Amino acid sequence: MPELRQNRFTKEWVIIATERAKRPEELKVNRPEVKPLPSYSPTCPFCPGNEQLAPTEFLRINGPDGKWRARVVANKFAALSREGEPTRKVEKSKRTINGVGMHEVIIEGPNHALTTALLPDDHVTSILTAYKLRYDEISRDPRITQVTIFKNHGTAAGASLEHPHSQLIAAPVISHQVRDRMFEALRHYDEFGECIFCQMIAEEIDENARVVMVTDHFVVLEPFASPTPFTTHIYPRRHMASFGDVSMEELADLGHTLRTLLGKLYFGLDDPDFNYTVRTAPSENAGVKYYHWHISVIPRLTRVAGFELGSGMFINTVLPEAAAEFLRNANADKASVEKAG
Amino acid sequence: MPELRQNRFTKEWVIIATERAKRPEELKVNRPEVKPLPSYSPTCPFCPGNEQLAPTEFLRINGPDGKWRARVVANKFAALSREGEPTRKVEKSKRTINGVGMHEVIIEGPNHALTTALLPDDHVTSILTAYKLRYDEISRDPRITQVTIFKNHGTAAGASLEHPHSQLIAAPVISHQVRDRMFEALRHYDEFGECIFCQMIAEEIDENARVVMVTDHFVVLEPFASPTPFTTHIYPRRHMASFGDVSMEELADLGHTLRTLLGKLYFGLDDPDFNYTVRTAPSENAGVKYYHWHISVIPRLTRVAGFELGSGMFINTVLPEAAAEFLRNANADKASVEKAG
Repeated sequence: MPELRQNRFTKEWVIIATERAKRPEELKVNRPEVKPLPSYSPTCPFCPGNEQLAPTEFLRINGPDGKWRARVVANKFAALSREGEPTRKVEKSKRTINGVGMHEVIIEGPNHALTTALLPDDHVTSILTAYKLRYDEISRDPRITQVTIFKNHGTAAGASLEHPHSQLIAAPVISHQVRDRMFEALRHYDEFGECIFCQMIAEEIDENARVVMVTDHFVVLEPFASPTPFTTHIYPRRHMASFGDVSMEELADLGHTLRTLLGKLYFGLDDPDFNYTVRTAPSENAGVKYYHWHISVIPRLTRVAGFELGSGMFINTVLPEAAAEFLRNANADKASVEKAG
Repeated sequence: MPELRQNRFTKEWVIIATERAKRPEELKVNRPEVKPLPSYSPTCPFCPGNEQLAPTEFLRINGPDGKWRARVVANKFAALSREGEPTRKVEKSKRTINGVGMHEVIIEGPNHALTTALLPDDHVTSILTAYKLRYDEISRDPRITQVTIFKNHGTAAGASLEHPHSQLIAAPVISHQVRDRMFEALRHYDEFGECIFCQMIAEEIDENARVVMVTDHFVVLEPFASPTPFTTHIYPRRHMASFGDVSMEELADLGHTLRTLLGKLYFGLDDPDFNYTVRTAPSENAGVKYYHWHISVIPRLTRVAGFELGSGMFINTVLPEAAAEFLRNANADKASVEKAG
């Protein structure tokens, strides 16, 4: 018998289709043999030596060897305009705002071929530090209310450039999806006097059925009402509404945590296309007791079809508990893979 | 300058990225040369003569020649189970319901190769009549609260079988997306005493910037805050909350309207993959004054990436006004294409 599960944070129902259930390993990517990427491409705007091809640089983070590990530049094809004021227009029933905001690219290292899963942990921490510094800087702009940091890896995830990178879009509005999550979390706080995410984290660690890993500062788990196979969340164990509140010590641990999870996906499922995104409270709500920032990692192993578009309900053919077990046991780096094989 | 536009029906903001704007014809599908489908496939469970391969038949609609035009069968890989009761379980913070519901396939004709855009109008009406008869029958089941009818055309839209077909999923819950639209429409009604959709239809026909076509009973338009290129809505001009309230005369007109729109997409954009879905009030809300059923047609020309997943905001690179103009001028059938060419 299939099961409907409710996402507590959005009130969305998900169909866990156990009748059509797949074993997690059945979703392993079957890639046609592809040529590995070169470590340098002469035409790539993000490769070292081509810095003149990527416009304005906002930030550069170097490693101990003095070479850069992360560069933040303006997106050449920005979705929003950096200049101007977000003026609102109300005309009959139309509601519009000038498209003012920021759209930046975080280049994740000089190597054209090295995806996040294959970087050293402390290099990933440098990338996350770039996120944090840009987040802090941009959040202070009074025109901005929501900063979304995200990564598209692979064509199925919407990536159009090979060189490893992530992006940041800062908008003058709070999106419906974020407002909705804030609202549900506030309702829970109003009724129970606790952060709904803190409560869930405690319950999940206690039940230990969907937890992938726990580190000093983070917990990685498959959500109970996971909408798609291997959707995975990383939560800070300490209560924090805003990504801007993360400490340097926590960022170092997060570099290890995120790298390990992406390594498990890379070696366990053969480098699936994926997105990840930082879901944070809007900057004007930093410090609230009811929301809890986290990272959602969303492998793109299945396609959204008419039922999902028409109802908003997802059909997930992999049990979150089975996905968690698979990821707990998956190797996270080349050395472990070679030892196991 | 890009523009943020608010979807009145969901309160979602969309970025209309005019700086990266594409002319509509740039989105024309560039298909590698593919072999046309055969009109009959011996292994296809939906082809005539193979009826034993598709299980239980619920309905068959014949044409004037006595041959079937539409058959409704059970989905062999049903996401929900037809038998049982939708029992709700509340255990700590988990909310689950037995996965009871219906999952049916509407086979859209005997010809393996004839997609909806190429069928005669009255054949499309027969398919829509099958939707309506199944909708009425299933809505009466007290275990069911929401019936979603949808079509996946092409692999990018999630279709896994070639033979033209659509699907129906009946669930024991109202999805968050539907509840959200109902709620926003009710708020509008509460404030203005009118259906927000009726009001929009009048305003759109008056402004005539995003209207694709108007028939006796329907209006086809690009929504003002369209989330993706060529997302197109078909609204009945008469106020009706539920798809179950559509009349036979209206269904005949809808067959013509839907076929014409799909023909314009087929000939104008070279057979893009697409989904469509009927967005209706739940059966328990049939007759409400504030909601208005419609069909959303969603060509799958772009990919959802991390920003959309992380914020719920879409970036649309085609102006809805430009898409409407393109579709107004597009040929809808082979005869017009040949005359024009």
